[in-house]
Amino acid sequence: MTDFPTRLTRALDLRYPVLSAPMAFAGGGALAAAVSQAGGLGLIGGGYGDDTWLAEQFALARGARVGVGFITWSLRKSPALLTEVLRHKPAAVMLSFGDPRPFADEIRATGARLICQCQDLGHVMDAVEVGADIIVAQGAEAGGHGKQRGTLSLVPEVADYLTRHAPETPLVAAGGIADGRGLAASLMLGADGVLLGTRLWASDEALVAPGHHAAILETGGDGTVRTEVADIARQIAWPRGFTARIRQNAFTDRWHGREEALRASASSVAPTYRQAFAAGDPENTGVWFGEAAGLIDRIEPAAQIVTRLCAEARALLTRPF
Amino acid sequence: MTDFPTRLTRALDLRYPVLSAPMAFAGGGALAAAVSQAGGLGLIGGGYGDDTWLAEQFALARGARVGVGFITWSLRKSPALLTEVLRHKPAAVMLSFGDPRPFADEIRATGARLICQCQDLGHVMDAVEVGADIIVAQGAEAGGHGKQRGTLSLVPEVADYLTRHAPETPLVAAGGIADGRGLAASLMLGADGVLLGTRLWASDEALVAPGHHAAILETGGDGTVRTEVADIARQIAWPRGFTARIRQNAFTDRWHGREEALRASASSVAPTYRQAFAAGDPENTGVWFGEAAGLIDRIEPAAQIVTRLCAEARALLTRPF
Repeated sequence: MTDFPTRLTRALDLRYPVLSAPMAFAGGGALAAAVSQAGGLGLIGGGYGDDTWLAEQFALARGARVGVGFITWSLRKSPALLTEVLRHKPAAVMLSFGDPRPFADEIRATGARLICQCQDLGHVMDAVEVGADIIVAQGAEAGGHGKQRGTLSLVPEVADYLTRHAPETPLVAAGGIADGRGLAASLMLGADGVLLGTRLWASDEALVAPGHHAAILETGGDGTVRTEVADIARQIAWPRGFTARIRQNAFTDRWHGREEALRASASSVAPTYRQAFAAGDPENTGVWFGEAAGLIDRIEPAAQIVTRLCAEARALLTRPF
Repeated sequence: MTDFPTRLTRALDLRYPVLSAPMAFAGGGALAAAVSQAGGLGLIGGGYGDDTWLAEQFALARGARVGVGFITWSLRKSPALLTEVLRHKPAAVMLSFGDPRPFADEIRATGARLICQCQDLGHVMDAVEVGADIIVAQGAEAGGHGKQRGTLSLVPEVADYLTRHAPETPLVAAGGIADGRGLAASLMLGADGVLLGTRLWASDEALVAPGHHAAILETGGDGTVRTEVADIARQIAWPRGFTARIRQNAFTDRWHGREEALRASASSVAPTYRQAFAAGDPENTGVWFGEAAGLIDRIEPAAQIVTRLCAEARALLTRPF
């Protein structure tokens, strides 16, 4: 039963048109379960394919109806992981950052919905071709990996494409959305719901170090940068064209714009980066949030975030013109 | 009398909450007058300060109530231009890309409204301090010059700042807006209206070469790039931090990412660039439009654009929830 009728709530049988981003490392089973229990759909972050971690996170979801998301180019290197994860009967599988074709049939054979996250129109064409059940249009404001398009013009352009080529497919907006204004605006742009990353990264249930949570509260929307330096430092070979939005800090000040120098010293930088990340150091590692930071002033329970966001959007959508 | 009540239409006594961007070279008197006569407020593009051109454009506005916009850092080099332009009694003067303080008093002494266009929160703080009558929050989707923030998260963050520090000041959204969905979304985000650049660049009245108009119709929102190469090629020394979104074409493919090499050969590239611009060559010069290109499929009269956009927004804003 939905309190918020859109094509997304109908398609996924949700109370609220809200998905959680399957954030690598930060989006575990507790966050996904909390979002689903609040009436959205939580997605566990499949990340770079650690099967032990994923099994733990599904256990922590304690049987809640959740989904999972993968970094598609990484999944391609260990496709058995998908088969393993599908045993947990996720309600949906989101594929992002790569060609969905090799995985679509196996996902849908289990009854899971296939969600394709897209950063440009080429990705949308691939997603439509593979018959995605739901399409996410992710703009450059988003924290973590993505591309260059702004959410405000990408969403209506994708909506127009879907109207012509896959009119039944619900569209979800992502990137820069942290409150009811963002949800209401997304619906005006032609989306049927939203996917929240940064706003839920700043929740009690997210697997984020206290030092990193403290950092987002002190950072405005101008205090992030889209860059390759985190991936170079971690020695993770992302495909060309994708960058990651992270907090601007001592680490990015040092290396952003000096990518070749960083590449040359990555083997010595990598351990420092990883150590600082594990310690929750806000300055000497990637701190993974997006421009929505400027709209966030509290770390709070995910359920509170989801319900307040939908109440705010409802108030905006029902105010007299 | 307004057909579309917002704080912007009340503040400027407009029928519709739509401003035209004062686009250098493209936004002349005919475009500004057409937008004003349709019920918005048209702004002539003050550009880099050609006083003869500006006098001609005010003449072409034929007494319509229009405003004017300046590139603030450039105006600083020829401040007498402002005094000259204020003799035409513009309804409003927009300052963008630089410190508004040196010009605010002279503008307001004439009764013109001071509009400050802002690309980050620092700019907004300056604009509030100088007592701007209207603030424009411009996101990175915009064509031409700007910075890195996406419109979707910048607008509500600026709205929150104004609520705390200048609650009576109307806010205008800019960057990526080309139809009623963009206007309706902007109002949901906390704006009181929109400023249209790219959408009006693609109008009959814009001073744009036919070859460039043809190019926007063939280009989607993914087909632009935010870059310094146009300014380097034109030998215009923009302050650090500002880049310009232009069409991705042979010129940007050749030079974007090779800025130092371009700087070294700018004196030979500049004439070619300017010649190709004047000729309307879509490949070998900067073609000045933004990500909203993906939402535009016709060059049409400005009045038609403004009235349709507002009718579309009204339909969205009054549809039942």
